[in-house]
Amino acid sequence: MTLDKNTISEDFKQIQSHICEELQKADGKGTFIRDAWERPEGGGGMTRVLTEGQVIAKGGVAFSAVHGPTPDKILKKLQLEKADFFATGVSIVIHPVSPRVPIIHMNIRYFEMSNGVYWFGGGIDLTPHYLAPEDAVFFHKALKTLCDRFDPTYYPTFKKWADDYFYLPHRQETRGIGGIFFDRLTETNEQSAENIFEFVKEVGYLFPKIYTHFMEKNAALPYGDSERAWQSLRRGRYVEFNLVWDAGTKFGLDTNGRTESILMSMPPLATWQYNQKPSEGSAEKFTVDHLKKGIDWINFSI
Amino acid sequence: MTLDKNTISEDFKQIQSHICEELQKADGKGTFIRDAWERPEGGGGMTRVLTEGQVIAKGGVAFSAVHGPTPDKILKKLQLEKADFFATGVSIVIHPVSPRVPIIHMNIRYFEMSNGVYWFGGGIDLTPHYLAPEDAVFFHKALKTLCDRFDPTYYPTFKKWADDYFYLPHRQETRGIGGIFFDRLTETNEQSAENIFEFVKEVGYLFPKIYTHFMEKNAALPYGDSERAWQSLRRGRYVEFNLVWDAGTKFGLDTNGRTESILMSMPPLATWQYNQKPSEGSAEKFTVDHLKKGIDWINFSI
Repeated sequence: MTLDKNTISEDFKQIQSHICEELQKADGKGTFIRDAWERPEGGGGMTRVLTEGQVIAKGGVAFSAVHGPTPDKILKKLQLEKADFFATGVSIVIHPVSPRVPIIHMNIRYFEMSNGVYWFGGGIDLTPHYLAPEDAVFFHKALKTLCDRFDPTYYPTFKKWADDYFYLPHRQETRGIGGIFFDRLTETNEQSAENIFEFVKEVGYLFPKIYTHFMEKNAALPYGDSERAWQSLRRGRYVEFNLVWDAGTKFGLDTNGRTESILMSMPPLATWQYNQKPSEGSAEKFTVDHLKKGIDWINFSI
Repeated sequence: MTLDKNTISEDFKQIQSHICEELQKADGKGTFIRDAWERPEGGGGMTRVLTEGQVIAKGGVAFSAVHGPTPDKILKKLQLEKADFFATGVSIVIHPVSPRVPIIHMNIRYFEMSNGVYWFGGGIDLTPHYLAPEDAVFFHKALKTLCDRFDPTYYPTFKKWADDYFYLPHRQETRGIGGIFFDRLTETNEQSAENIFEFVKEVGYLFPKIYTHFMEKNAALPYGDSERAWQSLRRGRYVEFNLVWDAGTKFGLDTNGRTESILMSMPPLATWQYNQKPSEGSAEKFTVDHLKKGIDWINFSI
């Protein structure tokens, strides 16, 4: 392919800046601090964090571009030949103040090796504390519209991938209402590397459009102590997914990644209650009953 | 060995009852609810949980005795020949209300297979939110005294094992001030199986003596919002250890164990702050500076 790794990481850096600006504008109060860090073995990153905003309780937007000899654990896990690597990406998790605003996660990434191996990966998934059907439809339609502009197979394939990836086997529930997830995308007869890169960038630029929509639409909706208590419990599940099952988190912690950047995904506050079960007919029960794989969110209605 | 698995599980059940009684008495307000459960493949357990006590915020004391064909994941992980298994144990994690009272964990367990393989395991470890040197000395002396009555090699061996086991590589810190940890204890020239069983039971009976001592001594010590905030952050680290590194938790969640009983170790509430660092000279910094392996707590002084 004719793409250059520096072009890719520079474009990713711009996406990070753009997202921080858009989120900050929509929040109206908080500001993203900048925390630059270096990786002893090569490269580094810029982690940006907004806390105690008006809409965002704790949000992280991280950029990194790292390189060097590929760590043995990565070679083994990904079954790769020994070579140097370069990896760059943008990772986001936003925990909102209001239980009426969903938690969101976005990631775009690029990986290449000195032997010519390369791929793109990424995804967006949404975790509402309370399922709002119109939000689910809006979210999945936005993803499908973007995917369809590149490849009609993308949305169905990546939607299923997200259902399978963002899943807590020990709870037998999905993390939220899914979204899209894709990994190891590389040029094919249908898609050039340049096309895939365009797609990945557009995922990045779509993210703030989707999330500021929810920020603006839902932040002023009323809620009380009971909804806040439920939000904290759902954040507990978010912690469980990220620490027990999320391949990126586990792998980062296991390969001496930068802990604070990896764990910026943790919520500001989470609670656990023994054997907590929402009551029949409640909005909480309605939400949990829809934490399932395979729901056709595009056509969802109740 | 002449021990019988039913004797062992009955004795463990008695230890569970004894511990709940002692903790309830020392708490003075909360009561342990009983939650019996069955394992579809054979056996079951009784999980007991106390929440919103006077001293205990959330504490679980779980007993289980399960059996059946050994799951393939266990055979593979422990490198065992195919056979039926029986496993029984008592597991405890207590999160106190006051940041002046330490978090504690205790476990005793017995595993046997139909082909004659068997072993005992267990441990106690202490996680103070604020390190109190006299508490650390008291705790480790109590463990050493018990160990020494059985075998002079136990305390040094099991203390080191706890340092290595209760460790967060991604934070480069120990979970707390350690304690003892042991696994796969089986008869040797020095110790019969009966002796090991006696030792394990005595660990169980020592637990409430140790913890009610801290409950009674520390619960009335003063603290404010700042200490509570620190407690929540340390509970976040407890969550990180249990979900990312604890072999028992990971394994339980991975082998379709009973989720609510496994995750009764989660704190009632935990917080995360990006890149939080205690200030120089603070009690918080003093604590974190001592979350290290290899400290001689028996002779510790400042």
